[in-house]
Amino acid sequence: MATLNLDELKSLLEVTNSKLRDLEKLDLNVDMTRGKPSFEQIRLSRDILTNIDEEVFDRNPNIFNYGIGDGIEEAKQLFASMLEVRSDEIYVGGNSSLNLMYDTMLKAMYFGMVDSNRPWMKEDTVKFICPVPGYDRHFAICESLGIEMITVDMTPNGPDMDAVEALVKEDASIKGIWCVPKYSNPDGAIYSKETIERLASMETAAKDFKIFYDNAYAVHFLDGEFIEQESMLEACKNAGNPNRVIIFASTSKITFPGAGVGVISANRESLDYMEKLIAAQSISQDKVNQLRHVLFLKDFDTLLEHMKKQAAILKPKFDIVLDSLKSTVADERIATWSNPRGGYFISVDTYPGCAKKIEEECARLGLKITKAGSTYPYYDNPKDNNLRIAPSFLGRSDLVQAMDVFTTVLQKIAIEEMLKNEQ
Amino acid sequence: MATLNLDELKSLLEVTNSKLRDLEKLDLNVDMTRGKPSFEQIRLSRDILTNIDEEVFDRNPNIFNYGIGDGIEEAKQLFASMLEVRSDEIYVGGNSSLNLMYDTMLKAMYFGMVDSNRPWMKEDTVKFICPVPGYDRHFAICESLGIEMITVDMTPNGPDMDAVEALVKEDASIKGIWCVPKYSNPDGAIYSKETIERLASMETAAKDFKIFYDNAYAVHFLDGEFIEQESMLEACKNAGNPNRVIIFASTSKITFPGAGVGVISANRESLDYMEKLIAAQSISQDKVNQLRHVLFLKDFDTLLEHMKKQAAILKPKFDIVLDSLKSTVADERIATWSNPRGGYFISVDTYPGCAKKIEEECARLGLKITKAGSTYPYYDNPKDNNLRIAPSFLGRSDLVQAMDVFTTVLQKIAIEEMLKNEQ
Repeated sequence: MATLNLDELKSLLEVTNSKLRDLEKLDLNVDMTRGKPSFEQIRLSRDILTNIDEEVFDRNPNIFNYGIGDGIEEAKQLFASMLEVRSDEIYVGGNSSLNLMYDTMLKAMYFGMVDSNRPWMKEDTVKFICPVPGYDRHFAICESLGIEMITVDMTPNGPDMDAVEALVKEDASIKGIWCVPKYSNPDGAIYSKETIERLASMETAAKDFKIFYDNAYAVHFLDGEFIEQESMLEACKNAGNPNRVIIFASTSKITFPGAGVGVISANRESLDYMEKLIAAQSISQDKVNQLRHVLFLKDFDTLLEHMKKQAAILKPKFDIVLDSLKSTVADERIATWSNPRGGYFISVDTYPGCAKKIEEECARLGLKITKAGSTYPYYDNPKDNNLRIAPSFLGRSDLVQAMDVFTTVLQKIAIEEMLKNEQ
Repeated sequence: MATLNLDELKSLLEVTNSKLRDLEKLDLNVDMTRGKPSFEQIRLSRDILTNIDEEVFDRNPNIFNYGIGDGIEEAKQLFASMLEVRSDEIYVGGNSSLNLMYDTMLKAMYFGMVDSNRPWMKEDTVKFICPVPGYDRHFAICESLGIEMITVDMTPNGPDMDAVEALVKEDASIKGIWCVPKYSNPDGAIYSKETIERLASMETAAKDFKIFYDNAYAVHFLDGEFIEQESMLEACKNAGNPNRVIIFASTSKITFPGAGVGVISANRESLDYMEKLIAAQSISQDKVNQLRHVLFLKDFDTLLEHMKKQAAILKPKFDIVLDSLKSTVADERIATWSNPRGGYFISVDTYPGCAKKIEEECARLGLKITKAGSTYPYYDNPKDNNLRIAPSFLGRSDLVQAMDVFTTVLQKIAIEEMLKNEQ
């Protein structure tokens, strides 16, 4: 991409401002803040709503009663195939993996984990490593529970492992790290084999160090191709740290957001410990919904076919975003962005000091985008230079308009800031 | 009921022992430990499984996506009518009220409640009052979280309020009380207006004292008649303690156990506080299941009609238990029992020191009953004299056999114990 000189920037700013005056007249009112599937995607799973007929009902009496607290066997098998673990390494939870992550973190604080000497909350300080940019809801869990967050930079292969290794080796108050290993939120990074093996085997001052492994997008490819990834649980076992990782996943973006099925996977010893704590909390999760999902998604191959249909809807939307950025942004200093192979987001790095202003100006024009700073703990991005684009929910024509506004605003604010710095 | 003399007891024991030898040959293998609905009851709600058709699906797009974290409006209205509160005093949760109780208690420990000076766990000791006999899963929550349990006796009108008032007035470490206000587990007590008003207005040393009000059986009558009960939330408001009560309920024993809908009701200020904490934990509960329930149960009158069908299945089973006790137990010292108008249990008070032996002897004969002592905190019933009968799950013929075993064993063990004490 080109690098424009001062005059070129000034004349581009004029063109951009003129375009903005036109876009103001659009009177847009659209919301791109969250990674919500569209109704078209949700419709793909409609058969799940009616797939328990009289015959299924009569054949599975135990599904409709109390008990089977860790989930039905068929659901364990399905999720085991998706997460490449054994089916006895699966706990099938309720409708939300976020809930499972929060619950697990709160239990770690209140009770400690299987290999803790005492509850985490009894330590003077508890810290978690948050690769940035990252997922705001992970940060919100830490903030709510009083866990201090330390950032390390993301790379295309995962967190900056040199930085991670140096931190965890020295500081015993660092109890864990948040990871989204495939198509990470928001920058779409895919953890490499080396990253996974280093996370599994690194020396940690805290002997009960935990990897909170949010495999939210395990099968959420955009290009139709399922990516095999080194198993983190296997890697931890091989490194002699079998209880280090707790894996979370759900079908929220496979079937129905909010009415899917969430799961935990971990080493059996860890699961035993957690399930004993859960016994005071829950008699059983919603096994009827588990059965619905098993009947609908059937097996891993059928699941992948289903995800290809999701990708066919999502891919053109990602292309709209990427094409719009590519065709508008005229200088590489204005912005760079991720080009993800899956997941739900495109991460845009703007000229420093621009992200908040862009968010505000977009809002003024009727376009809500994810809050600037939300990809950093405490909404504190020191460079104020990262924004998350969530293309999934909007219809294509709305998305085209939204991106027209976004890229124009992005260019305007960035050039203004660049010119200010030139003076 | 008669009081037998020594000779009569001895001869009755001989008859009983002889009958037991016959019952041994039955080779029974039945489980009466839990209050599980029968499949016949569950079948009553089968239409819920398929009541979201294409038209409903298209008309309610937001139900199938993220958001609406506190539940759909129609569900709030339905549960408000059931619990006699306002619909804006309802939070619609996941599949389990037990989960909501555990979560609320853990949040009280970790964060404190809306009117707390600090998290409960920062106090030297946290105590809860547990009316006995009571519900083992309430006790398990306290035990798991390290909350000390203090017992008070139940009366037919609710907890012994003189004892409760004396305790909470003096001891600021008592942070709350467990209540099952209607058809209480296990003795079927119905809290009187006076009990409710005294609970709402009593002076408590802890200013953040909480009534955990598990209204599990609000509409679970056996005799077809819905019982109006003073509203605890209103009573608390009237007494100037609007945040004192947190009400829990679910449809687990209305529709599907484990695949129903759980709710919290509380004063708006309390709910605001709790929902702010929940925001870090959950984006939304399963609104699809909420919609299913609204479409099926429709309104309070339809709900009551549904509960009449449940009662028609349950009542004959309770009668089998009561008839068996009445026709077998020949001396009032051997056992007395509750005669509930609703709920899921019959509470049997045995001759002191017999409950554990009865449980063991029943187990030997192939009949599992609820663990003796489980109606007391820490499984510690000082008199060893209370057992809980759960008639709902078994088919009628199994139940007749089970009660034959139970009453015979009950009589045998009690007479042996009485004779021992006479020597």
